[in-house]
Amino acid sequence: MIYFDNSATTKPYKEVVEAYLKVSEKYFGNPSSLHSLGSEAEKLLSQSRILASSLLGVKPSEVIFTSGGTEGNNAAIKGVAIEYRNRGKHLITSAVEHPSVLEAFKQLESLGYDVTYLDVDKKGRISIEQLKNSLRDDTILVSLIHVNNELGAIQPIIEVGQLLKKYPKILFHVDHVQGITKVPLSLKNSGIDLCTISGHKFHALKGTGLLYIREGIKLAPLLSGGGQEMSIRSGTENTPGIVAMTKALRLAFEKANSGGIEHLWQLKERLSEGLKKIDGVIINTPEEKEKAAPHIINFSVLNMKPEVLIQDLSKHHIYVSSQSACSSKLSKPSRVLMACGLGEERAKSAIRVSFSYDNTIEEVDQFLDILTNSISNLQKVMG
Amino acid sequence: MIYFDNSATTKPYKEVVEAYLKVSEKYFGNPSSLHSLGSEAEKLLSQSRILASSLLGVKPSEVIFTSGGTEGNNAAIKGVAIEYRNRGKHLITSAVEHPSVLEAFKQLESLGYDVTYLDVDKKGRISIEQLKNSLRDDTILVSLIHVNNELGAIQPIIEVGQLLKKYPKILFHVDHVQGITKVPLSLKNSGIDLCTISGHKFHALKGTGLLYIREGIKLAPLLSGGGQEMSIRSGTENTPGIVAMTKALRLAFEKANSGGIEHLWQLKERLSEGLKKIDGVIINTPEEKEKAAPHIINFSVLNMKPEVLIQDLSKHHIYVSSQSACSSKLSKPSRVLMACGLGEERAKSAIRVSFSYDNTIEEVDQFLDILTNSISNLQKVMG
Ligand SMILES: Cc1ncc(COP(=O)(O)O)c(C=O)c1O
Ligand SMILES: Cc1ncc(COP(=O)(O)O)c(C=O)c1O
Repeated sequence: MIYFDNSATTKPYKEVVEAYLKVSEKYFGNPSSLHSLGSEAEKLLSQSRILASSLLGVKPSEVIFTSGGTEGNNAAIKGVAIEYRNRGKHLITSAVEHPSVLEAFKQLESLGYDVTYLDVDKKGRISIEQLKNSLRDDTILVSLIHVNNELGAIQPIIEVGQLLKKYPKILFHVDHVQGITKVPLSLKNSGIDLCTISGHKFHALKGTGLLYIREGIKLAPLLSGGGQEMSIRSGTENTPGIVAMTKALRLAFEKANSGGIEHLWQLKERLSEGLKKIDGVIINTPEEKEKAAPHIINFSVLNMKPEVLIQDLSKHHIYVSSQSACSSKLSKPSRVLMACGLGEERAKSAIRVSFSYDNTIEEVDQFLDILTNSISNLQKVMG
Repeated sequence: MIYFDNSATTKPYKEVVEAYLKVSEKYFGNPSSLHSLGSEAEKLLSQSRILASSLLGVKPSEVIFTSGGTEGNNAAIKGVAIEYRNRGKHLITSAVEHPSVLEAFKQLESLGYDVTYLDVDKKGRISIEQLKNSLRDDTILVSLIHVNNELGAIQPIIEVGQLLKKYPKILFHVDHVQGITKVPLSLKNSGIDLCTISGHKFHALKGTGLLYIREGIKLAPLLSGGGQEMSIRSGTENTPGIVAMTKALRLAFEKANSGGIEHLWQLKERLSEGLKKIDGVIINTPEEKEKAAPHIINFSVLNMKPEVLIQDLSKHHIYVSSQSACSSKLSKPSRVLMACGLGEERAKSAIRVSFSYDNTIEEVDQFLDILTNSISNLQKVMG
């Protein structure tokens, strides 16, 4: 099996599943319970928060655990919109966000908020100039994706953070779900106020995630209730999932920092070179290293329906995707590629390969062989 | 170990953990992915939905999977409040709801909604008369807890459902988190439009839950995004958690229906009899079978701080709780007992015992022995 769909989801690490199992069975108490089963669970929770925050270079009190990236994005965006509604109702985001950001903004529009969607260039990047011109007295939030989930394009988060530091009343949220560990992003002193990550994208278990909330920022809670997670995210804590996610985060950072990121670049370069040799293939992901992540390549196979190619590769136990996982069943041209101005033909025929640290050069070579064959066979059938 | 804190959380069943493990490792694909790893996961998801809905006697399309009870309650209440805001802004609930319901309503009040909190009698029950008198032209929602998490008191859900059938524009949400499998509640043709359950209360894993949404009811989504769970609850599905929860639900219903509920009544009666013999103990849970659940007994040990007793029992590996898990750290008089008019002294000294199907008469007897000793020792120390 060659699993190249790590941006859709990842296989959980063995050690992570083991940690989950152990906590589920031995430490099943409710962390809020007063007895020792409760306090043991509470201790695991607080250790996890300390570890996660230190990996992210922030304070434990700035980290809340969530059920995933969609929840983190919704909690941040709707939480700011509701909490700071008396300050203003203007929000800014980009045209290439994940649906969990885009749809949150659409809902807020229907509730009377005013949203500016920033354009992107052919590399999928917003312009700082346009952002600057969009800021208003009633702007309360800017939300941007760090690494684009379809293209791998990187937004100029550092520059945006620098700019927004001059506007302390405008909060800055970053969807870091695809970038975490693979494209370093320092949260401290970055101007970033809120940052979403999701466990299942870095070999943790599904239904886990984390939201960074800078000290002093308030959010109207999406999940009101018993007051867990500093009253921003109530609900009995998923202790096993949280312990497991924190472990996965540590392991992923360790891999990243011990050559993992360079390894991803090598995989990407090898794939890139190979793809360029295949007739009818155009790479959509920006080539410049500083403009794209090391683990994602998006390319179009002209005149080929991606579903057909994906099914064919799937028969060879090779797993890639078209667009993002959640849009993939719609088989419309990719909204992200269209927004980049890459044209309908490319937007309709895009394939995404996404690596994990554990993929190998051999897998890339094998993939290229099978892909080349598959394309030429399918072209014959269709032609 | 005698674990009598099953209303706070339960130990996951072995078979449930095994199912989780298997799905996590073998079927880790994103259900939205087009390739076979995706469709295998999607298949598990849809089988789980079919099983869960058949256990609940409803349609698969009426079930969405959530991250737990708090999410279900918030999704239902806020979802109705936002979706039907143009119809009216009056909401009705009771004075004895779980914080995940109460706090959702408090937030809605701060957003301009008008909330009526129904009183309860000494048995913790609302009056149908007061409910009837509270209904207004602009009422859009009634939300009631079925089995109270502190007292075990049962609300007259069937009567409320009958009444509300006459008001098709008023939706009825039931928090069934404590009642599921233990106090039968038929959803079909009951007048219930929305019903919340939570996995970790019936030996499933934490971070899982389910919301029943009757056909035709719309909810403004709390979690907007990729369109999963019929666009009411976006986010990559927690397939292993969902499969495991559905299995736990099946097992719990099997236990309930093969003598489990009578067994709980036996445990409760034994405990009840024993408690009545201890000086200074008053039982707070209603005695009438039709007014209380079989698995919860709440009692007060007069002039005793529940924390102290809980810690002492905990040393003997006996686990019980005071109030609900999430309020337990506040050590204020129980809001629920106060609302029932049981007085501050009883509300300050309440202990909750909550059984699972797997507890035994021997455990009850042992508990009574140790409790009796514990109380008399602590009384000596304090006296
Ligand atoms: C960029 C981005 N943001 C948010 C999400 C949503 O995360 P989750 O699937 O954990 O809800 C995803 C993945 O689905 C993503 O790629
Ligand atoms: C009656 C009731 N409703 C809702 C909840 C919240 O469920 P969860 O802990 O799964 O968020 C609980 C338990 O905490 C409860 O007892």
